[in-house]
Amino acid sequence: MKLTAEAKGTFAIAPTPFHDDGRIDEASIDRLTDFYAEAGCEGITVLGIMGEAPKLDAAESAEVAIRFVKRAKTQQVIVGVSAPGFAAMRTLALTSMDAGAAGVMIAPPPALRTDDQITGYFKQAQEAIGEDVPWVLQDYPLTLSVVFTPAVIRRIVMESPSCVMLKHEDWPGLEKISTLRGFQKDGSLRPLSILCGNGGLFLDFELERGADGAMTGYAFPEMLVDVVKLSRAGQRDAAHDLFDAHLPLVRYEQQPSAGLAVRKYVLQKRGAIASSAQRKPVAGITTAAKAEVDYLLSRVARFDRRANLQAQSSAAE
Amino acid sequence: MKLTAEAKGTFAIAPTPFHDDGRIDEASIDRLTDFYAEAGCEGITVLGIMGEAPKLDAAESAEVAIRFVKRAKTQQVIVGVSAPGFAAMRTLALTSMDAGAAGVMIAPPPALRTDDQITGYFKQAQEAIGEDVPWVLQDYPLTLSVVFTPAVIRRIVMESPSCVMLKHEDWPGLEKISTLRGFQKDGSLRPLSILCGNGGLFLDFELERGADGAMTGYAFPEMLVDVVKLSRAGQRDAAHDLFDAHLPLVRYEQQPSAGLAVRKYVLQKRGAIASSAQRKPVAGITTAAKAEVDYLLSRVARFDRRANLQAQSSAAE
Amino acid sequence: MKLTAEAKGTFAIAPTPFHDDGRIDEASIDRLTDFYAEAGCEGITVLGIMGEAPKLDAAESAEVAIRFVKRAKTQQVIVGVSAPGFAAMRTLALTSMDAGAAGVMIAPPPALRTDDQITGYFKQAQEAIGEDVPWVLQDYPLTLSVVFTPAVIRRIVMESPSCVMLKHEDWPGLEKISTLRGFQKDGSLRPLSILCGNGGLFLDFELERGADGAMTGYAFPEMLVDVVKLSRAGQRDAAHDLFDAHLPLVRYEQQPSAGLAVRKYVLQKRGAIASSAQRKPVAGITTAAKAEVDYLLSRVARFDRRANLQAQSSAAE
Amino acid sequence: MKLTAEAKGTFAIAPTPFHDDGRIDEASIDRLTDFYAEAGCEGITVLGIMGEAPKLDAAESAEVAIRFVKRAKTQQVIVGVSAPGFAAMRTLALTSMDAGAAGVMIAPPPALRTDDQITGYFKQAQEAIGEDVPWVLQDYPLTLSVVFTPAVIRRIVMESPSCVMLKHEDWPGLEKISTLRGFQKDGSLRPLSILCGNGGLFLDFELERGADGAMTGYAFPEMLVDVVKLSRAGQRDAAHDLFDAHLPLVRYEQQPSAGLAVRKYVLQKRGAIASSAQRKPVAGITTAAKAEVDYLLSRVARFDRRANLQAQSSAAE
Repeated sequence: MKLTAEAKGTFAIAPTPFHDDGRIDEASIDRLTDFYAEAGCEGITVLGIMGEAPKLDAAESAEVAIRFVKRAKTQQVIVGVSAPGFAAMRTLALTSMDAGAAGVMIAPPPALRTDDQITGYFKQAQEAIGEDVPWVLQDYPLTLSVVFTPAVIRRIVMESPSCVMLKHEDWPGLEKISTLRGFQKDGSLRPLSILCGNGGLFLDFELERGADGAMTGYAFPEMLVDVVKLSRAGQRDAAHDLFDAHLPLVRYEQQPSAGLAVRKYVLQKRGAIASSAQRKPVAGITTAAKAEVDYLLSRVARFDRRANLQAQSSAAE
Repeated sequence: MKLTAEAKGTFAIAPTPFHDDGRIDEASIDRLTDFYAEAGCEGITVLGIMGEAPKLDAAESAEVAIRFVKRAKTQQVIVGVSAPGFAAMRTLALTSMDAGAAGVMIAPPPALRTDDQITGYFKQAQEAIGEDVPWVLQDYPLTLSVVFTPAVIRRIVMESPSCVMLKHEDWPGLEKISTLRGFQKDGSLRPLSILCGNGGLFLDFELERGADGAMTGYAFPEMLVDVVKLSRAGQRDAAHDLFDAHLPLVRYEQQPSAGLAVRKYVLQKRGAIASSAQRKPVAGITTAAKAEVDYLLSRVARFDRRANLQAQSSAAE
Repeated sequence: MKLTAEAKGTFAIAPTPFHDDGRIDEASIDRLTDFYAEAGCEGITVLGIMGEAPKLDAAESAEVAIRFVKRAKTQQVIVGVSAPGFAAMRTLALTSMDAGAAGVMIAPPPALRTDDQITGYFKQAQEAIGEDVPWVLQDYPLTLSVVFTPAVIRRIVMESPSCVMLKHEDWPGLEKISTLRGFQKDGSLRPLSILCGNGGLFLDFELERGADGAMTGYAFPEMLVDVVKLSRAGQRDAAHDLFDAHLPLVRYEQQPSAGLAVRKYVLQKRGAIASSAQRKPVAGITTAAKAEVDYLLSRVARFDRRANLQAQSSAAE
Repeated sequence: MKLTAEAKGTFAIAPTPFHDDGRIDEASIDRLTDFYAEAGCEGITVLGIMGEAPKLDAAESAEVAIRFVKRAKTQQVIVGVSAPGFAAMRTLALTSMDAGAAGVMIAPPPALRTDDQITGYFKQAQEAIGEDVPWVLQDYPLTLSVVFTPAVIRRIVMESPSCVMLKHEDWPGLEKISTLRGFQKDGSLRPLSILCGNGGLFLDFELERGADGAMTGYAFPEMLVDVVKLSRAGQRDAAHDLFDAHLPLVRYEQQPSAGLAVRKYVLQKRGAIASSAQRKPVAGITTAAKAEVDYLLSRVARFDRRANLQAQSSAAE
């Protein structure tokens, strides 16, 4: 089923599981897919920045995308196809869609500066992948160093009928959501799903500003799922209580470059992947950092017992 | 009393108070200085990034620095003297020290890239201000876009006897503190005070890694003071409990560019400054954001009654 | 006489002359001003990037600007007032205009990215200096890392009646001049003087595309003056012949950061300034580089005898 | 024959020829290879920045590299294998070497900042491609925004026995060549071939500073070949005379992003490729620019009759 502007809920940003020697761990792809399904995620986004996508060669990227797509049953899979050029982008997009992906995600290359450069790039990107491929616009200036105004996002969306979703991770970004929703109220912007990334650091308020859900890789996707549901149900205090209980760990996991090691460490502890290995270049996790994560887990577990990994981890390790 | 490498505790990063029309509000400088003293801060850092320093002309910078220094009784005042050139840096440093400042703080200009460019710059900066002026090295890559390795910090400190403190706000930065403390254990780095900025977002663990305290502008400096004390006293859980209760607001206030408006809004509510006005260019605070801050304050107040600003704010407004 | 959109010809970008110990050399300011007058320059631009403006403190900047303005008789003086904030910009602009400057020049701060950020900045800058101060927009992405589209320049000019000139140094930039002149033909852009910088590297064709002249600091301003005149007189081949004879040296002098040392070395040889000293941080000139410049001078002199500095330099040194 | 540190002469940076519809033009690859051979080039570097390498997908990159390698008879072919990750880099390097390439070229990813980040990256790159693949280090800060000191280059070379060549295109860069040659005199750096890029803009003096030749894509490689020979033969004035005659066009062709269109336009005029088409995104060439290039060609032809393309172009078009 293809992605539409009606998409809502939680899309997990999946890491790419590797064996300790760097080979792709296909069994763990399956396990991780099931893990996200059990957590209640509506979708999975693969080969994003946190998926170590640039570290795969072309054949591996296709292999990983297809494996996730084939395993996912109820979930929509979005494949990150950002590439230095349109030929590679197109090749991966078509392969993924053929395999059954719901859509693709495109981030801007870092050199884009002016409004026209940005809108021109996405127009050409859409032409490259073809107008029938639904795509997600990634807006992540902290990492990508490209700055989109709300008006530029509107131009991109209005010029590209197949752009159905914004992965919102501007920082700060709350006013941006309000502005985009305002554009829709005044009729100048058509329907658009907005899912929020940025490690989930502002998910609590992003939902209240009008976001449709989360698209991030926090190692407890259950929390994201529940916060989205509570917020949508109008249970504001309960949503914040749950979010705040996890926030110390959310914050710890959202450290640039270092965060992936934390995330893989926790996912391994939870049994979702077999190894926390990354491909080079690696920003690893020290013994001190592991102890800090364990301490944070124990504190989260006081509020949310799902974070009590004592039993799970002894089984998994 | 001049700043030394023995400095510990909490140094508040002070905003510069303005009247609504943009003039410097000298009465609020006095009030703010007293506010930090009552909160238990050991020091105040003025004319930093959050002090809107670049928006003042040379005469105003001197005026603000002197006013803070004169009002502070028990606290040490550090004056940010970062400037596009050494002449302006020297002028403000000498004026501030003559008035009784404890030391100055220097951030690197954004174009520095190689290790040698960085160490060369700070060597020349020290020559410019004179060897008898104690200075703080600011390491804030997120905003300044200059990246220091621990070995580069060591070189700077070992080549400049008057560098007595690191304002640590690398991100991620926990391992950096451990590495620097390791350098001191192996004898390759002399004593150095490390105070942590970055909005306080990782203060809980930074202290456990060996930091000497906080240097940031969170609008509840009492929390910083208490977390530093609890952590130093070995009361780990209590330190984290207090920190975590504030973390949702700490996070909200630490949003780049938008954070200052939040901080001034809360400080005004608390009666520490008369107006939350900033000079242009301004990233302001919307009604929606104010309501979010108020909600966060009410939630913090469930744990820490000092955040209950109902009575205070009605008096102050 | 205030600067207008009718300005044409050659405006020399003046270096700031220092004594060997770093003090400002006021006698050389006078000598340099006369030198530019004798070369036939219509104007002088002081305190630009090549004027080491950021290395002066506020009092020195005012002193240098005033000295140039007072000495210039027939030439218009433009003062670079770019600053990290509007207060310092305003202070220097008003001081300069009071002393008799023709206008001021403003470069964008490096953080500006989106079209709205750029136009918003210059709107506030104009408010800061006042609507009666004619100003020059500097468009130099190579050094300033801010990218303006022609449409953004048009917006800035149309929103700010006192913006009378563009210092064009985009790279590549020929099409930009054609586009701006096209805007004027279609009536969407009002009159605007366009003078070209970028070391003069493309002056030959910039004039043919519609530029009004040169604004750069090449140490043989006579060449710039003559190329502008020849080009305006329709003597295309003669203009290129003269330009090409100087191009090897123009290119050598235009090396980023290293170029200023070359320029000051030649100006000193020509007797226009007493010392080639720069303030720290310095990118100096080696013995090997001096020999290369001397060789280039000897080659230029085969075509343009004014570059024969044997007699001059023995007198000057 | 594998590339060694003894390499000298002129290596042409080859564009990738496309048909007007964007498909790779294999016949033009052959023609271009022959063209470089006839011009006297010792080698060809393919899939560099000017080869539009990022616009090819993985299969196309391999195809282009192999085609060039197979056609070249007397010339060494170097294949650019820079990639966002090591897996893709390794795949293309092995494919190219298997086909008979002489070596590969690696540029740094833009995020590298500290000395340790840079040296660490190239150590891992060498591991990725294998120690038996000779490689060229590309030092091009203007485009790549990574800054190498001479000492960092020395560390990379001394830690990687298979690094045999530096593609030098720092700007300014003359002193860097002298420093590296000085390292070799003092025994701290082993033999290393230095070929110069940067459009050839400083080739005249780079050779005199100790460079071994040129590696750039100027559309008259005969000029590069002859200047290298004249300079090596000690005919200084003759070398500069020839270089200076071409400099106006060299400069024009070296405009960032716009330069490739100029280069392909001239190569097409010369009959070396069938079409000047580029893949999207394209910085094209206007009618005005074509006329300027034609004028420059006519001026070059007054000195160097090979630039007289009247006959050639009428045949080719």
